[in-house]
Amino acid sequence: MIPDQILYSLVIPTESKLVMVVIDGLGGLPVRGRTELEAAKTPNLDRLASKSACGLIDPIANGITPGSGPSHLALFGYDPLQYEIGRGVMEALGIGLKLTKDDLTARGNFATVDRNGIIVDRRAGRIASEKNREMCQFLQEEIKEINGVRISIYPGKEHRFVVVFQGEGLRDELTDADPQKEGQKAKGTEYLTSEARRTAEMVNEYLRRVTLTLQPFYPANTILLRGFSKVPDIPSMTERFKLKPAAIATYPMYRGLATLVGMEVLETGETLREEVETLKNHFHEYDFFYFHFKKTDSAGEDGNFQKKVKALEEIDRIFPFLLKLRPDVLVVTGDHSTPSLLKAHSWHPNPILLYSKYVRPDGVRRFTERYCQQGQLGKFSAVEVLPLMLANGLKLKKFGA
Amino acid sequence: MIPDQILYSLVIPTESKLVMVVIDGLGGLPVRGRTELEAAKTPNLDRLASKSACGLIDPIANGITPGSGPSHLALFGYDPLQYEIGRGVMEALGIGLKLTKDDLTARGNFATVDRNGIIVDRRAGRIASEKNREMCQFLQEEIKEINGVRISIYPGKEHRFVVVFQGEGLRDELTDADPQKEGQKAKGTEYLTSEARRTAEMVNEYLRRVTLTLQPFYPANTILLRGFSKVPDIPSMTERFKLKPAAIATYPMYRGLATLVGMEVLETGETLREEVETLKNHFHEYDFFYFHFKKTDSAGEDGNFQKKVKALEEIDRIFPFLLKLRPDVLVVTGDHSTPSLLKAHSWHPNPILLYSKYVRPDGVRRFTERYCQQGQLGKFSAVEVLPLMLANGLKLKKFGA
Repeated sequence: MIPDQILYSLVIPTESKLVMVVIDGLGGLPVRGRTELEAAKTPNLDRLASKSACGLIDPIANGITPGSGPSHLALFGYDPLQYEIGRGVMEALGIGLKLTKDDLTARGNFATVDRNGIIVDRRAGRIASEKNREMCQFLQEEIKEINGVRISIYPGKEHRFVVVFQGEGLRDELTDADPQKEGQKAKGTEYLTSEARRTAEMVNEYLRRVTLTLQPFYPANTILLRGFSKVPDIPSMTERFKLKPAAIATYPMYRGLATLVGMEVLETGETLREEVETLKNHFHEYDFFYFHFKKTDSAGEDGNFQKKVKALEEIDRIFPFLLKLRPDVLVVTGDHSTPSLLKAHSWHPNPILLYSKYVRPDGVRRFTERYCQQGQLGKFSAVEVLPLMLANGLKLKKFGA
Repeated sequence: MIPDQILYSLVIPTESKLVMVVIDGLGGLPVRGRTELEAAKTPNLDRLASKSACGLIDPIANGITPGSGPSHLALFGYDPLQYEIGRGVMEALGIGLKLTKDDLTARGNFATVDRNGIIVDRRAGRIASEKNREMCQFLQEEIKEINGVRISIYPGKEHRFVVVFQGEGLRDELTDADPQKEGQKAKGTEYLTSEARRTAEMVNEYLRRVTLTLQPFYPANTILLRGFSKVPDIPSMTERFKLKPAAIATYPMYRGLATLVGMEVLETGETLREEVETLKNHFHEYDFFYFHFKKTDSAGEDGNFQKKVKALEEIDRIFPFLLKLRPDVLVVTGDHSTPSLLKAHSWHPNPILLYSKYVRPDGVRRFTERYCQQGQLGKFSAVEVLPLMLANGLKLKKFGA
C-alpha cells in the first residue's frame, strides 16, 4: 500500500459520488458444498458483478480475524494497525453514546467476590438485564463524581455495562482492572505512563466506592473494568480524502464508528427500505456514502445458514434502486466474514465488486467468494479499497511526473 | 503482514493438530511444455487440492531466490529478513552439529598459497574428501584450543570443512578471512565492532598456527574461513505461537533448522516410509509437525527432470496415510522452487494447498503451479502460511473489538 502522506497529497475533490455498501459478515464457508452466498438467489448482485471489477479482500492480513472496529477502519481507508479503537470505546459506541475527547470509557462486568476479595464469579451469575439496569441506576445516583470527574454508568445485557469518566486530562494508559480469571483477587487498575497516574487513582477510588456501595447486592457485590480507552485521534475523511461523507446504518456501533472518521450520520429507520430511502433523499448532499447492512452478520453469528441466505437475498433487492441514483462508483463488499459454520467472525477474505465507468468487467458471473476469486482485482487488502474508489471517481492525481 | 507483536498476542493454545509437509524445491519450470509437477502422476495430491484452499507462495519476495535457511524460517512463521542464519551455522547444521550460544562457526576451504602468501588456488586442487578428513584430523590434534577457546574442525566434501570455536563471549561481527579471489593475499579476519576484537585476534592466531602446521601439506598449505556466525537469537515456536512442535526430516540441515526455532527433532529413518511411521507414532504428542522431503530438491539440483517427477510421485503416495491421522490442518508446499531446467534454487513461487474444515475448496483440480495460481489464497508471502494454519486450527483470537 502507498504511504498515507503520499495518498493524501494526490487527492483532488471532484463532483463524483461514491457509494460503499458494507454487507456485515458477508463471506461464508461451505455447508454441504455451498456457502451462504452460493446458496442465495442474488440476481441483482450477480448482474452487477458481471459489469464490475471483482476480487477478494483481506480485512487485515492472512489468517487474522478482525473485530468490527479494525475491519471498518480499513474499509474507510485507515490502517487499522495504526489507529486502534479500544474495547471501552466500541462498547460505548455500541449503545449509542456520543463520545468526546474528554471521555474515558471502560467496559464492565458485575462480578462476585468472597469476603477475602477473591473473584468467585466473573459474571455474578449472569444476572438478568433488568437487575443490571436497576443496579446501574442505583450506582449512578450514589456516585456521580470523583475529584471533578463526572461518572456515568450505562447498563448493557446481563452482567455487562459501560462506564464513561468525563473530565479534562484523563488518560487511557491503564491496565485492565480485571484479572480475567476467577480464583484471583479483584485488583485495581495500574497506570502504564506517569501521565496516567492521576486517572488510575481516580478509577481506583471509584472501584473502592462501588464495592462498598454494592455490599448488599450479593452476588453482584463488585465490578470489574477493562478496555480503558478514549476515542483515537483519527483525522477525518474530509481532512484526508477531501470527501463529504455520510453514513447510513441502523445499529449504533456502526453509526459510532462512522462518527470517529468524521462522517455525518444520517437519521434513518430500522428497515432496509428506510435505509435506501435515506440514501435517495440525501444523495445530492454528500459525495461518499457508507451504507451498512447488519442482518447477514447476526445470522452468521447465530449459526443460522438459512437466515443468512435470506438476509443476502434481502440486500440483493436494493441494487436496482441504488443504480437508479447513478453513483459514479459503487463498491459492494463485507467488513469480515461471518460463516454460519463458525458462528463467529472469521479470517476468510470477502468478495468485492467495484462498479464504475472505468473498470474492465472481468466476466465474473456471480457475486460469490469463489467467483470473485477469479476477478481482476485479485486478493488485496481492505485498506486499499478506498484509494481504488477515489481513483475510479477521478479523485486522485497522477503520482510523480 | 501483521506485526509479530500483534500476531503473538492473538495466539491461544487449542487441541488442534497442524501438519506442514515441505516438499523441498517443489516448484519447477516447463520442459517441453510441462513442469515436473505437471508431468508427474499425483492423484492423491490432486484429490487433496480439490478439497483445499490453494494458491502460490513467494518464499521471500518477487525475484528473490532463497537459501534453505530463510525459506524455512519463513515457513516456520519468522520474517527471514529479520532473523539471519549465517553460512557457518548452516554448514554446521548440515553436518549434524548441535550448536549452543557459545559456538562461533565458520565454513572453510583448504587452499594453496605461494611463498608470498598469494592465493593461487582457492580449493587446493579440490583435494579428495579422504585427504580432507586426514588433514582435519591432523589439525584437530595439533590445535585444540587458543586462549581458552576450544576449537573443533569437521571435514566436509572435497576441500570444504567447518570450524567451531567454543567459548564464552565470542562474537560474530567479523569479516570473511577469505578474499574470495585468487591472485590476492590470504588475509585474516577483521572485527566489525570493538566487542568482536578479541574474537578476531583469536581467529587470526588460529589461522597463523594452521598455516604453519600445514607447511608440509602442499597444495593444501593454508585455509580460508568465511561466514563467521553464531546461532541467531530466535524465540521458539512455543514462546511465540504456543505450539508444541516436532520435526521429521532425514537430512541434518533441516533437522538443525528445526532446532533453531525450538522444535523437537524426532528420530526417524532414511526412507519416506519411516518418516510417515514416525509421524504416526508421535502424532498424539505434538500439535505442530514439520515434515520434510528432500529428494525433489536433489533431483532438481541435478537437473534431472525425470528423477524429480519420480520423487513427486513418491511423496504423493503418503497422503492417504497422513489423512488417516485426521490432522485439523494440513499444508503441503515447498520451501523454494528448484527447476531441473536451472539445476538450482530459484525465485519462482511454489504451489500451496491448505486443507482444513474451514476452507472454501476452490475447484483447483490439480496440485500444480498453474492450477494453484487459480486458487483462492492467491499469491502471498510464505511467512503468512503459519498464521493461516493457526487461524484454521482456531488458534488465533479476534484482533480488536
